[in-house]
Amino acid sequence: MSKGKPTTLVIGAGLIGTSIAMGLVKAGYTVFIDDTDPHAIDIASTRSGAKKLGSESIDLVVVATPPSKVADVMRAAVSAHPAAVVTDVASVKGTILGALATLEHNQLERIVGGHPMAGREVSGATAAQNNLFVDRSWVVTKLPQTTQSSIDLVKQMISDLGAVPIDREIADHDLAVALISHTPQVVASVLAGVLNEANKEHIALAGQGLRDTIRIASADAKLWTDILANNAANVSDQVSKVAKHLEEVAKAIKEEKLSAISDMLDRGVKGRDLLPGKHGAANKQDSLIVVRVEDKPGELARLFNVAASANVNLEDVRIDHSLGRMTGLVELTVGQDKRDVLVGALTTADFVVVN
Amino acid sequence: MSKGKPTTLVIGAGLIGTSIAMGLVKAGYTVFIDDTDPHAIDIASTRSGAKKLGSESIDLVVVATPPSKVADVMRAAVSAHPAAVVTDVASVKGTILGALATLEHNQLERIVGGHPMAGREVSGATAAQNNLFVDRSWVVTKLPQTTQSSIDLVKQMISDLGAVPIDREIADHDLAVALISHTPQVVASVLAGVLNEANKEHIALAGQGLRDTIRIASADAKLWTDILANNAANVSDQVSKVAKHLEEVAKAIKEEKLSAISDMLDRGVKGRDLLPGKHGAANKQDSLIVVRVEDKPGELARLFNVAASANVNLEDVRIDHSLGRMTGLVELTVGQDKRDVLVGALTTADFVVVN
Repeated sequence: MSKGKPTTLVIGAGLIGTSIAMGLVKAGYTVFIDDTDPHAIDIASTRSGAKKLGSESIDLVVVATPPSKVADVMRAAVSAHPAAVVTDVASVKGTILGALATLEHNQLERIVGGHPMAGREVSGATAAQNNLFVDRSWVVTKLPQTTQSSIDLVKQMISDLGAVPIDREIADHDLAVALISHTPQVVASVLAGVLNEANKEHIALAGQGLRDTIRIASADAKLWTDILANNAANVSDQVSKVAKHLEEVAKAIKEEKLSAISDMLDRGVKGRDLLPGKHGAANKQDSLIVVRVEDKPGELARLFNVAASANVNLEDVRIDHSLGRMTGLVELTVGQDKRDVLVGALTTADFVVVN
Repeated sequence: MSKGKPTTLVIGAGLIGTSIAMGLVKAGYTVFIDDTDPHAIDIASTRSGAKKLGSESIDLVVVATPPSKVADVMRAAVSAHPAAVVTDVASVKGTILGALATLEHNQLERIVGGHPMAGREVSGATAAQNNLFVDRSWVVTKLPQTTQSSIDLVKQMISDLGAVPIDREIADHDLAVALISHTPQVVASVLAGVLNEANKEHIALAGQGLRDTIRIASADAKLWTDILANNAANVSDQVSKVAKHLEEVAKAIKEEKLSAISDMLDRGVKGRDLLPGKHGAANKQDSLIVVRVEDKPGELARLFNVAASANVNLEDVRIDHSLGRMTGLVELTVGQDKRDVLVGALTTADFVVVN
């Protein structure tokens, strides 16, 4: 462990593994990278400055393979690197760490579960970035046998990548991701799947609402099969709960029970308001400004120049394009206290603010 | 009918009604506006130049009240204005037009159903715009008794507002909106509603995926109760179908049937690809470019200036902010043929393109 930084081996040269290698090299770590695909090692090595593994003594192993391989790779790693702490980055923790229960005590002491909340639709080593984890949450989970020094080593690595370690119990983490990530994925995929049976002329009338609701249905089916199977009990329970709610609502609508329909919609409004805003802030501190923009080059630049000149930071931007429309509505989310400044600046610049 | 433009009465001074009044005044129509709320008439009248109704002879009545009032208001209008064609803008057609079946033949001849595909989360006369319908689809439906001259008058008005009339059978329209609008609303509301029972620490880990999936859950609960009740049979059937699919998927996940899970996800990817793109174009012609942007004033302006200088029109823009992150990933959608130009320009300007 030269100069206080652990000699680190990253196994899995995809987006996450390569980004970790890049970030750790930048942070002064000696990093090795391995993969079952020699071509991926070459790309990752060139991009990150990580070396190919020889016979070096390793202090820390980060397993960044697809979820279905993680337990086996971790098992091999604690054995092959008897002095190393071994951690992973998989989005499910219970099945993977449970599969390691038969390891020896002195191996289990060196196992730390990890989950950086930094997934992307893009993938592969070429999409990697050394700052992918900056300011991101990174969940840390432990086994009963895991030592504090093992946890400290992994948390130091997380901090060195610019991320924020968050302690969670294994079961608690898996329940959380079933709720906020895995079940929404299933619901979006099923809702999008229904379109395959639909009349194309019906689909032609679809607008931004449906588009947003099923956006994540475009995710990688192979990776997600793996994720859902690894969190099967939690996801199954949660999806079944949503299905039962929907069946009840279908009945209430059929019987035109207005108060039940209204309650369901009200609960939806309240539920949406519970989501964290940017930087974990509450939505309530933000204000939405809707601006009409001509659909031609330069107009968006002009809009954002006005915002920049007014020294207003945009929390979020959304452009609403619907079927056959030649102009767009741009929704800008800004801090409540910046609303008047920006509306004034936009109006002065001849933009039409419509709300 | 002076100068060939029908003297028009708009009933309902909300977003849609006031926008229609504004657009028709601009197109040279003589327009009157009415509402049960005198204050709303004042605002709409001031904004649009439409006049308050006296004893004028009316050629065309546009009913833009909440859906639950539409049938009664249309019934009163065909009687009060015996020479007028009467149309509406409600998002459900069957229940409303069905409720008019007891009218006399010479009244039914003058009824035309309409549905402009231009809803917005914003509402009220103050949010109205004279160009709200430009390039939008506007569904036109008719009763068996409706005359061709009645339809022609409504289609002329639609064209004069810059919109595109699309003929649909009543039943077909209501099936289509159940599929592409009403069922997604119910699913998003129920999925968001489940968060009310959840642990706040679990919700804190939520990212952009859940945020998009439940965005429309923030819609107006009162208006939507009305809409869902008016399309009860179609929506109930469709929601029930989604619920059954979800229950099957929950079972497949519980039993870890990988091929069933994978099929469900594949169907979702294919379904999402069926959505029309901007201007009705297929998604396939677009390319997604992901750019890393510092979260500070001016950086977005700089990004869009680069796009404008390269003369590249952006089809869509999305900013991904997740919990605790101080930098953002901006997703730009551009025509496939503009991709290389824009990536080159962005790279030259020191932006990091990550895909």
